[in-house]
Amino acid sequence: MIQELFTPSVQHWLDLVGIFVFAISGALMAVRKNWDVFGIAVLAEVTALGGGLFRDLIIGAVPPAAFTDLGYFITPLIAAALVFFLHPEVERTQTAVNVFDAAGLGLFCVTGTTKAYDYGLGLTSSAALGVATAVGGGVLRDIIANEVPSLVRWDRDLYAVPAMVGTIIVVLCIRYDALTSVTSGVAVVTAFVLRLLAMRYHWRAPRAWNRRSSTTEVTDEVV
Amino acid sequence: MIQELFTPSVQHWLDLVGIFVFAISGALMAVRKNWDVFGIAVLAEVTALGGGLFRDLIIGAVPPAAFTDLGYFITPLIAAALVFFLHPEVERTQTAVNVFDAAGLGLFCVTGTTKAYDYGLGLTSSAALGVATAVGGGVLRDIIANEVPSLVRWDRDLYAVPAMVGTIIVVLCIRYDALTSVTSGVAVVTAFVLRLLAMRYHWRAPRAWNRRSSTTEVTDEVV
Amino acid sequence: MIQELFTPSVQHWLDLVGIFVFAISGALMAVRKNWDVFGIAVLAEVTALGGGLFRDLIIGAVPPAAFTDLGYFITPLIAAALVFFLHPEVERTQTAVNVFDAAGLGLFCVTGTTKAYDYGLGLTSSAALGVATAVGGGVLRDIIANEVPSLVRWDRDLYAVPAMVGTIIVVLCIRYDALTSVTSGVAVVTAFVLRLLAMRYHWRAPRAWNRRSSTTEVTDEVV
Repeated sequence: MIQELFTPSVQHWLDLVGIFVFAISGALMAVRKNWDVFGIAVLAEVTALGGGLFRDLIIGAVPPAAFTDLGYFITPLIAAALVFFLHPEVERTQTAVNVFDAAGLGLFCVTGTTKAYDYGLGLTSSAALGVATAVGGGVLRDIIANEVPSLVRWDRDLYAVPAMVGTIIVVLCIRYDALTSVTSGVAVVTAFVLRLLAMRYHWRAPRAWNRRSSTTEVTDEVV
Repeated sequence: MIQELFTPSVQHWLDLVGIFVFAISGALMAVRKNWDVFGIAVLAEVTALGGGLFRDLIIGAVPPAAFTDLGYFITPLIAAALVFFLHPEVERTQTAVNVFDAAGLGLFCVTGTTKAYDYGLGLTSSAALGVATAVGGGVLRDIIANEVPSLVRWDRDLYAVPAMVGTIIVVLCIRYDALTSVTSGVAVVTAFVLRLLAMRYHWRAPRAWNRRSSTTEVTDEVV
Repeated sequence: MIQELFTPSVQHWLDLVGIFVFAISGALMAVRKNWDVFGIAVLAEVTALGGGLFRDLIIGAVPPAAFTDLGYFITPLIAAALVFFLHPEVERTQTAVNVFDAAGLGLFCVTGTTKAYDYGLGLTSSAALGVATAVGGGVLRDIIANEVPSLVRWDRDLYAVPAMVGTIIVVLCIRYDALTSVTSGVAVVTAFVLRLLAMRYHWRAPRAWNRRSSTTEVTDEVV
């Protein structure tokens, strides 16, 4: 590790909180799909650890933290157990999935970017990997649940942009030597709140310019 | 490699047998889907090598055995060729997929766990990676075939539990210094038989506790 | 790196051209699916970089070029921007996806094989990894777009064979010490043209021999 942007314990706790909230979102998705207790545990683990595993494989941090630190493995199981007994009514699970997913998005875009930079990647690459870490778990969750990932659906509210904004704040702080617990907290909260606002006010991104056809080939995907 | 639980040749043969039976299950799934000869070969390779590739990337054993040992690459092709000419009637392919998949599950939960431990992971992490190795190929097979993985479906019989039991036997044997060809064979057979029994008697896991809604949002997935 | 089959700049330019054409194919698929501008950018990046990322993880070239070389990251964004403004009529996007995908297939089967061989893999393993590099991005694109990959569908024209032929030409050239810019260009063009011919004349591979059932379990997949 070239340098340490945070003390290891701060990085560790931010990671665990991000893992916990992503695990909640995965477990709730499994409840919504009516899967059994193992399906809930698996989707909690995959959603929570998927983005970080991808990041660790890319930067060559093997074996990844998810397999060397018991806390990373057990945290999603605790989240799965909580959801198993205490999940909201099924009608409200989608909203709950989205809120916990937004919190994970905010936390992981910060920890993903800083860990990538710690391992010697440049600022742009660290930002790209930070966004990939933040969105990776959710994309895997949606693929396993056989849904088109929210990340790419036009009929879903902005998803990548909040993570990008959080990442850009972190990268600017690193560039100007201003990354502290406070500024990284600001980045987390900014990404989280932007995602919540995007969902509340249905902010959307434009589709391809001048789409010269009325063919609706995606009918089966617009639920 | 820190230590060698098995002689290399025992590990190697167990691996090849596991690869062969998983490849059969993948090739049969491709026949059931009515894919062409290349689809059969690809699904055989992915199912057979997917779990082990994931394990090798995680423990940092690169390039993975699948790409350095010709036997690992050719075995799935032999399985695909056998299935191409000798597959059972299509109505019976699903049962055959499941039986060969169960054999692979038993073999890979043992070889996955021991290889992870050989590379210095702790016992709990080795067990987690062993289960991931065992279920990984089947999950990839189901994703590529555009099906919800058996691993997580509530309407499917227990899948992860047999792999977990086999893994726990291996881990206990390692812990008490009792891992031999015989005890690891017991672990393989236990996992295999448990999975067969789970399919025969439709053992299932509970779904989320107190699911307060009659909404059946999963209608499209319960085939 | 054991040896250098090409000068780094030739390898680099071939890679960038392959990334560009695959990115075009991914962006066009996203337009066809009616995704928004971020969906277009994401599918362009994943399609363009997926195969190479897989190759780099397998051979242990971490962090992969995709995350250390800005050109690899920015090229797909340029392709996405071009498609965003200049895509063809939606009815023609599928053909355009296929043509650009064929060009990427030709380029990546050559660069994938040579890079794997540079990193010390044997000839057969290099060929296998070259084919995996060539088809990997397209498979990921299709999985994220929730389609059964063209690679395995019986009702699609030959896909893997052109990549295999290109790879075999490269491997023979390496074996007989005849790999030059010219011979590798021949391999690229051969794979590209074979794929175009396969699409033009609907060359298909046989399905399982003596399929003893009229059951059409794949009805839902034959679009």
